[in-house]
Amino acid sequence: MKITQAVQLELARQNKLTDIIRQAATNENVDAELLRTEIAAGRAVVPANTIHLAHGLKPCAIGRCVSTKINANIGLSAVRSSLDDEIEKMHVALDAGADAIMDLSTGGDLDAIRQRLLSECPVPFGTVPIYEVIIGRSVEEIDHDAILKIIEKQAQQGVDFFTIHAGLLKEHLELVKPRVMGIVSRGGALLARWMIYHNRQNPLYELFDDICAIMSQYDVCFSLGDGLRPGCGADATDAAQLAELKTLGELTQRAWDKGLQVMVEGPGHVPFNQIQYNMEIQQKICHGAPFYVLGPLVTDIAPGYDHITSAIGGTAAAYWGASFLCYVTPREHLGLPDAEDVRQGVIASKIAAHAGDVARGFGNAAACDKELSIARANLDWKKHLELSIDPATAKNMYEEACRQSALGEGRHNQDFCTMCGKEWCSVRISKELRR
Amino acid sequence: MKITQAVQLELARQNKLTDIIRQAATNENVDAELLRTEIAAGRAVVPANTIHLAHGLKPCAIGRCVSTKINANIGLSAVRSSLDDEIEKMHVALDAGADAIMDLSTGGDLDAIRQRLLSECPVPFGTVPIYEVIIGRSVEEIDHDAILKIIEKQAQQGVDFFTIHAGLLKEHLELVKPRVMGIVSRGGALLARWMIYHNRQNPLYELFDDICAIMSQYDVCFSLGDGLRPGCGADATDAAQLAELKTLGELTQRAWDKGLQVMVEGPGHVPFNQIQYNMEIQQKICHGAPFYVLGPLVTDIAPGYDHITSAIGGTAAAYWGASFLCYVTPREHLGLPDAEDVRQGVIASKIAAHAGDVARGFGNAAACDKELSIARANLDWKKHLELSIDPATAKNMYEEACRQSALGEGRHNQDFCTMCGKEWCSVRISKELRR
Repeated sequence: MKITQAVQLELARQNKLTDIIRQAATNENVDAELLRTEIAAGRAVVPANTIHLAHGLKPCAIGRCVSTKINANIGLSAVRSSLDDEIEKMHVALDAGADAIMDLSTGGDLDAIRQRLLSECPVPFGTVPIYEVIIGRSVEEIDHDAILKIIEKQAQQGVDFFTIHAGLLKEHLELVKPRVMGIVSRGGALLARWMIYHNRQNPLYELFDDICAIMSQYDVCFSLGDGLRPGCGADATDAAQLAELKTLGELTQRAWDKGLQVMVEGPGHVPFNQIQYNMEIQQKICHGAPFYVLGPLVTDIAPGYDHITSAIGGTAAAYWGASFLCYVTPREHLGLPDAEDVRQGVIASKIAAHAGDVARGFGNAAACDKELSIARANLDWKKHLELSIDPATAKNMYEEACRQSALGEGRHNQDFCTMCGKEWCSVRISKELRR
Repeated sequence: MKITQAVQLELARQNKLTDIIRQAATNENVDAELLRTEIAAGRAVVPANTIHLAHGLKPCAIGRCVSTKINANIGLSAVRSSLDDEIEKMHVALDAGADAIMDLSTGGDLDAIRQRLLSECPVPFGTVPIYEVIIGRSVEEIDHDAILKIIEKQAQQGVDFFTIHAGLLKEHLELVKPRVMGIVSRGGALLARWMIYHNRQNPLYELFDDICAIMSQYDVCFSLGDGLRPGCGADATDAAQLAELKTLGELTQRAWDKGLQVMVEGPGHVPFNQIQYNMEIQQKICHGAPFYVLGPLVTDIAPGYDHITSAIGGTAAAYWGASFLCYVTPREHLGLPDAEDVRQGVIASKIAAHAGDVARGFGNAAACDKELSIARANLDWKKHLELSIDPATAKNMYEEACRQSALGEGRHNQDFCTMCGKEWCSVRISKELRR
């Protein structure tokens, strides 16, 4: 298969500074030549399907040389379905600051949903093609041909990155047996079912070169899926997870050899003390390919609050090596998120990404904190609220406090603190002491 | 000053296993003799005013040999005041799992509030006596005598631990000048104002022996306040903070010499990458005294979500050395928390404490996670929800998902997932694969 000129990785390797790289670098305020070098080395990606690019995609880089990015999952399910709801959720996620969107729909008219979402999505858009393969097909009906056709169709539609669970091998299934939670990746579970039923190797692994050939035509970026990601702390960093990771490292190299950009997906549920190791081992085994993690969730006991358990793990992951955080909403494990859950999930994930960037000393992350704090120190409420991660929520809380303290709204820029009043406000005293 | 027999630290040093220690150890499922040794060494405390003990306090240990504890702050302010609201908040905090309560009231009838809260509080109860000193007094009216009288009165009322900002010295104020946020501790700020106005040393430092004498009569535990805690990431781990910490280390030893139990308060706003150092330096300088941290908040940019920024820092702190986390509510920096903010703050802080305990391999923390995950793997919704950190919220979300999927409520223990339905549910497939 001849690599087309459109493939970003090949162009970067040829020292060509494309418009895509320039735009992505400008958005980040990083040097374009640095970004090109990182893309060429496989340490950064710019997921950009040529079709989506032609229809308004704004290039966005993912890697350690740029800020930590976050993804929001949306999608109709067999359980609950409304296209309008999902469109709304996508816009809520984008407004709250999501850097990428994944459509995980498993119900409704999948093509219509995907095309509608894509047409309104200015950021990298990902899917898990195997989800469509199983819709309306029993396990015996799923064959190599069906899989490739769906991958090709979705590539043609403009999807920027595909989760491909090609690393979960038949021989890994034995390693799942001692697990508490077994396989919690839906893609992983259905491929496992397929492998057991047909007594054959993972079709995505066997078809890997064919899949590369299709993806390179549209320059779709790989997101190598972790079908064996741990679904609870007890299963974290186990033999099954690490065996799959080894295969993902091999597949990373194979995809690179074909000129494809690659991200690698990661856990999952991981106790806080194992996060550093998980980030470092992935970077090593997958040769520095950007790591895209789900969470990690640092404890299992908080259904209803897993945006928080994920923000904890996400910060640690971003500090120690991840480049891309998949959000988790408060409703994870319990049901499908509504628009407000999506918003909460995006904000928690953005907090983690930003806190990770502050910790690793990236770019102007710490400077953003400082700028807000200077406004706070000056009791400049207007600026303080404007610079916050969610100005509307912060402003509402502040105005509510003003009303409740019977001092009226609109006290921005006045020498008054909604927490401790005026006389003994520490910030006010500090202001006095500075003089 | 003769040490009375009631002082727990002295008894522990004399190898006496008191009922207080036994009860605290039983609650934790740790060995009482181990706890006694840790208390004798100053590495654990059981804040228990003899008066509060006589009125229903359940002893609770704080230190690295027991589970990580969390505190909820409540209290009337000059800005907004209702005793009933604060009573409600205390009960909300206790119901949500707070291990200790601090009354930070600075408005209303302080004695009435404190006595009412104490009478209904079964857990260790703390105050910041200097807050009462400033009520109705101008800075020129505050003298040594006024301070000691209030400390003595509050000790007599049964307060279990006092925040005493004795470590902020006059000579440290110079170090505050380069700061972005100056002094954000209210106690620290008002003592700074006093020192500048009177051109004298911190009265709490000068009165330290007298304060010890009062506190030992009722066995009140020290919580040595960090008046110079950083109020933004840019000020973290700076010269001012470390200078005060050095004094806190000296005061820890002085209080121990008087037979007093000691905790040491810590930051504050600390970027994620500085948390490990902060925990280790405190343990070293303060000779292993339990570290009681506020947050730490790993970024400044999230007013409205600082329960999340604190849960991130709190997990890291609990992993690396803190014993006691002070909650932060979503309304921090913006206004005073209502009851729901208090609940959200307690839960976020409990998540951090638990995730820290899982990470440090403490007790049965990981076993709790595993138990819930086994229920999850079995699609045993009833047990899954019951074992979660906030069963009512988790159950509401689950029931809502059942209703929305048009499958009706009460599907507990049925082979159905509210996220992916039945056919292709990964957990269900995993169950099949196990068979």
